[in-house]
Amino acid sequence: LARRLHGIEPTIFSAMSALALRTESVNLGQGFPDTDGPAAVLDRAREALAQGRNQYAPGLGVPELREAVARHQQRHHGIDLDPATEVVVTTGATEGIACALLGLVDPGDEVVLLEPYYDSYVAMLQVVGAVRRPVTLRAPDFRLDVDALRAAVHDGTRLILLNSPHNPTGTVLTPEELAVVAEVAVRHDVLVVTDEVYEHLVFDGRRHVPLATLPGMAERTLTLSSLGKSWSLTGWKVGWATGPAHLVGALLAAKQWTTFTSGSPLQPAAAYALDHEDAFPAALARDLQQRRDLLCEGLAAVGLTPRVPEGTYFTLTDVGHLGWEDGAAFCATLPERAGVVAIPAQGFYDDVEEGRHLVRWAFCKDEPVIRDGLARLAGAR
Amino acid sequence: LARRLHGIEPTIFSAMSALALRTESVNLGQGFPDTDGPAAVLDRAREALAQGRNQYAPGLGVPELREAVARHQQRHHGIDLDPATEVVVTTGATEGIACALLGLVDPGDEVVLLEPYYDSYVAMLQVVGAVRRPVTLRAPDFRLDVDALRAAVHDGTRLILLNSPHNPTGTVLTPEELAVVAEVAVRHDVLVVTDEVYEHLVFDGRRHVPLATLPGMAERTLTLSSLGKSWSLTGWKVGWATGPAHLVGALLAAKQWTTFTSGSPLQPAAAYALDHEDAFPAALARDLQQRRDLLCEGLAAVGLTPRVPEGTYFTLTDVGHLGWEDGAAFCATLPERAGVVAIPAQGFYDDVEEGRHLVRWAFCKDEPVIRDGLARLAGAR
Ligand SMILES: CSCCC(=O)C(=O)O
Ligand SMILES: CSCCC(=O)C(=O)O
Repeated sequence: LARRLHGIEPTIFSAMSALALRTESVNLGQGFPDTDGPAAVLDRAREALAQGRNQYAPGLGVPELREAVARHQQRHHGIDLDPATEVVVTTGATEGIACALLGLVDPGDEVVLLEPYYDSYVAMLQVVGAVRRPVTLRAPDFRLDVDALRAAVHDGTRLILLNSPHNPTGTVLTPEELAVVAEVAVRHDVLVVTDEVYEHLVFDGRRHVPLATLPGMAERTLTLSSLGKSWSLTGWKVGWATGPAHLVGALLAAKQWTTFTSGSPLQPAAAYALDHEDAFPAALARDLQQRRDLLCEGLAAVGLTPRVPEGTYFTLTDVGHLGWEDGAAFCATLPERAGVVAIPAQGFYDDVEEGRHLVRWAFCKDEPVIRDGLARLAGAR
Repeated sequence: LARRLHGIEPTIFSAMSALALRTESVNLGQGFPDTDGPAAVLDRAREALAQGRNQYAPGLGVPELREAVARHQQRHHGIDLDPATEVVVTTGATEGIACALLGLVDPGDEVVLLEPYYDSYVAMLQVVGAVRRPVTLRAPDFRLDVDALRAAVHDGTRLILLNSPHNPTGTVLTPEELAVVAEVAVRHDVLVVTDEVYEHLVFDGRRHVPLATLPGMAERTLTLSSLGKSWSLTGWKVGWATGPAHLVGALLAAKQWTTFTSGSPLQPAAAYALDHEDAFPAALARDLQQRRDLLCEGLAAVGLTPRVPEGTYFTLTDVGHLGWEDGAAFCATLPERAGVVAIPAQGFYDDVEEGRHLVRWAFCKDEPVIRDGLARLAGAR
């Protein structure tokens, strides 16, 4: 194994989904829904297959999807983009992260990121040889510590890797918090890569504000999003990156060698979803809010009072309240004790103490599945 | 742009396909067919979309595809594989190359490869910081110079990156040539990554011999192949890597962070193709042989006597015979002079002189398209 990958564990999501299958547990771990996205989008993919959309798409993505992404960014966020140079289709946001870092970060470069972090961020930061500077969202409210952020970013910082709505905490950064991100990025002339895949999945009347809409940010921000989370088609792995041509170009410079292109017949269907299925993510968010409440109340009832998330699919609980020393041990034994799979969050922290007791639960699953999981938890040994 | 990507040009295939569209030229450049693969495979993908195969596939790929790959390797090549640990699904062979190199090659490691080479090989070798040691297949017969290979490989060599059937020369390595590859790999204890995406597309009764079937090679060889070329579905970007668990694991260690997984609804259809559509690549090879002859005769008729390829989609010609100093200049002006796009091969060489006059032509296009291209060439200014 090459040194750039030494010490990086296999992704926890694969391990825990395999464990769920093996133990026939209710999978409240990996973030994917039980129910697929809009039938009309599936139909459009079926048509694309029949209509000869089966050879290489351009490296940037099929024009109709890039145009639909540009229209989506205009309609939802008031962002103007040139689909010829400011949009690139990726194999999910995962490839967006990988190629943004391969394209923009040199060995030794400092990257500031929110902790807890999505596992691929840290793996890819190690692959590119970056020095990571975590800024911790601390329990119980998991807000951005703006002083810690101001202290972490300096003139030598290469990049801020942001994520809002934030996985795994469920925090949605407020306009005030985002303003501080913009302030430090502009002051120190730092690039930002922002993972906004949960942009449509926010609750209680909140609005997601894209970082790129803040003053001074459009020219320094690469925004990542995808079809998977908002349109419940995680397996299609159709995502996109948007931003100024020089940042999109840097991502493409890497992406042309990682996959070149992907999912030709799925791309026209993704364009259809963006253009014609605005109602889907809106309804999904309303529905997820109810499932969030169901899960959070059920977790509280078994003594695992959660952080009530503002967005995303996920909530965190502190298993120290049940006397557990370690969230990983809790999760490793949970399938046997209860027939439920959840994700230990400590792997998402540099600061092991901060994450030791935290466990992540997904509520993107169908309501009966969540109820079943909760009933099993209530009967846990 | 990060230093690891400095000086790497955008992939020539994107540039030339864009040029073909812009100039309404006949595209004999990028290697993709005009006609899609088997209708039954498309139907299977349509079914998978309807049957809820739309959420994340496992990182290794869906079990049915891994099992079908194992059966394919057994049936065609007599290779036994454990689908649980010795097969991984990739986003085309491109991701296989990228992740094999990210997973196996450290900065400063020496990698021996055949020249001319596919452009992503060299780009990814630069990304991982490898030192490349090309062994040149020289005109006019483009055979492997076994003495040059023996001289290039030594105990410090990390990896041999092989490709047979070979793009762009059309050379299919003979059992004798492959035996020398195996001999040096075993003698110097070197790993081999072998790109065999054209495994089924060989002509004149030849048989492709997988390197992994040679004595001593199974334990040190990672073999890459894909659905795209053999089943005429290049846009699906479904590929696979096979080999011993430690090499498959090293590739997966990288791949989980580049895309994690891709093309969920396409994977069951790929399994169907492997299990039920052996006849398709066999018929395609017969048909391609006729198109090869058509193209080669037409090129000879305009003074561009080609190397008659033994496999792949491609043939090389020497435009020096027409008085051109440079294949890149020939190709840059060809759309205007003739309404045809071809690929200059000099970018596939470290040794600029060796490749200066060579131009690659694709014959995977429909016969009328090839005829049209040849008629245009005959009338070229
Ligand atoms: C790519 S697998 C992980 C899915 C996900 O986004 C999550 O569970 O956090
Ligand atoms: C991935 S685009 C290039 C397609 C191809 O294999 C070729 O033209 O050589």
